[in-house]
Amino acid sequence: MTIFDANGHGHEPSSRVAFAGNRLDRRSEQRHDDSLTEALASPKMRAFAMQGGRALLKKQGEEFAPLHSAEELDHLKPDLENAILLGFSDDESPRIAVPVHLDLETLPDNIKAVDHRSIYMQGLLKDSLLGELAQGASLLAWASSHRHCGRCGEKTIARSGGYRRECPACKQQLFPRTDPVVIMLSIDLENDRCLLGRSPHFPQGMYSCLAGFLEPGETMEDAVRRETLEESAIRVGRVRYHASQPWPMPHTLMIGCYCEATSTDIKIDTNELEDCRWFTRPEAEAMLNRNVWGNGHSTPPPGAIAHHLIRDWLESTD
Amino acid sequence: MTIFDANGHGHEPSSRVAFAGNRLDRRSEQRHDDSLTEALASPKMRAFAMQGGRALLKKQGEEFAPLHSAEELDHLKPDLENAILLGFSDDESPRIAVPVHLDLETLPDNIKAVDHRSIYMQGLLKDSLLGELAQGASLLAWASSHRHCGRCGEKTIARSGGYRRECPACKQQLFPRTDPVVIMLSIDLENDRCLLGRSPHFPQGMYSCLAGFLEPGETMEDAVRRETLEESAIRVGRVRYHASQPWPMPHTLMIGCYCEATSTDIKIDTNELEDCRWFTRPEAEAMLNRNVWGNGHSTPPPGAIAHHLIRDWLESTD
Repeated sequence: MTIFDANGHGHEPSSRVAFAGNRLDRRSEQRHDDSLTEALASPKMRAFAMQGGRALLKKQGEEFAPLHSAEELDHLKPDLENAILLGFSDDESPRIAVPVHLDLETLPDNIKAVDHRSIYMQGLLKDSLLGELAQGASLLAWASSHRHCGRCGEKTIARSGGYRRECPACKQQLFPRTDPVVIMLSIDLENDRCLLGRSPHFPQGMYSCLAGFLEPGETMEDAVRRETLEESAIRVGRVRYHASQPWPMPHTLMIGCYCEATSTDIKIDTNELEDCRWFTRPEAEAMLNRNVWGNGHSTPPPGAIAHHLIRDWLESTD
Repeated sequence: MTIFDANGHGHEPSSRVAFAGNRLDRRSEQRHDDSLTEALASPKMRAFAMQGGRALLKKQGEEFAPLHSAEELDHLKPDLENAILLGFSDDESPRIAVPVHLDLETLPDNIKAVDHRSIYMQGLLKDSLLGELAQGASLLAWASSHRHCGRCGEKTIARSGGYRRECPACKQQLFPRTDPVVIMLSIDLENDRCLLGRSPHFPQGMYSCLAGFLEPGETMEDAVRRETLEESAIRVGRVRYHASQPWPMPHTLMIGCYCEATSTDIKIDTNELEDCRWFTRPEAEAMLNRNVWGNGHSTPPPGAIAHHLIRDWLESTD
């Protein structure tokens, strides 16, 4: 075994997926109960304002800006008590995410509420801001579903700049949640084909990698084998990790893997998929490049980890 | 890039760590609201009985058996309403995990309540049962901390054989939780050394890999770099995934990585570590083989993913 492969750090597959560009200094070891108050008092503070899976963007000509100053935030009915400190930018600007409670039907003309998936799909933000948005969206989604203690039902209190919640009754500590999902491209090495499926929820013609939540008490590799077997009846041997991606709908870690199919007869789990089949390299390449919403087959768009798994396979040497 | 490295499936590093041996057929796509009732009605049903981070083991001579029949379970005050169906063994025996409510001080002589860590450390169970125990322990810990809805505080109801909980008031769905933790061995390639630290909670003399929770909105590789920088001030370039491990204290996925140190001056985060230093290969090898609780330096024991990261580095060619 060699410890490192030839890929340099600059070519790290995880650095090329959407939502992975967060460069904030999180200072996770330095969070304390006054962190948020201090951040809110700083004139350099800039905030993501979020509501129900959407971010409020300022429209500036053709551009969209997601960061709001304290003064701008004042007009958005911010719930500052449930704000969360994300970290600090290069110029020591504290960055926070704040839930707001607006009537989205009557927003001013220069404010647009856009769901996180559309922000990524339409390329509205540069990579670093999209990465910060992923952190903020994941944390606010977690916090909003943990307002009460799961053990005793009491209302919880935000601590450590919002990064921890505490139950005043039973003292349970609640920490942010990240759900690992395995997403994998099964390769039929003998016939040089890959396995793709489509969920009934996909846009017309789109096929993607199989995927599923990793279960308690399971290794990453076992999750890849179990999910592939359950969804397609394809048996899998070797598994290789390729890249990971933060996916803030609501707070997922996509773990992208290649795996070697050791069988070829597909039996579709019709509860999950409406189709699943093998695609040759030329077929997969045509789908990848015809990446449009419309007729014909397509793959998920650039930025999606499935897109990178397919593209990197096409560019691989085995 | 090549898709697969030379390691065969049989040599998968994740298959050699403790708690990874679960071979139950989980049939995750087939869970439904009667799954648990059906399992409890089966004469083949066998149950893990658990209480407060401990499993109740039957002592049979020098051996320990963790599985209880329905009749045996009857004597242990089982909370069957909060049992969870784990899956099915090769002989179609439904396997469940059940919380029990006993006075642990007055257990019969042939029943021992042993915490999950000790069960692994003392090698009390074979790999497959230790893997099943990891699944059951993780799920029961999750379920017990989600008896109430985090959104509205209402009591939740178990669904899908216990694998899902539902709030009857606000309809929130709750799914099992697995917390990804990165654990990494930083390598100083130029000087052929690895970085190990010790927490004040470790047994005397023990050093291990640095580790920390992956944060929302973060790739695995970025988590490795952030945690290493925060705990030791060591900067890291390339990161390579090596192995993962289910860790049921309470419901963690350990993600083991190698990373290339690009600096060498250590500055210890004294909130987390009481020491952190570079170890040469001979030093690391001596620690690994002197893996005893006692004087002198040691590493975590076989089965721990840190042990495997260190050993596999020692056996590597770069």
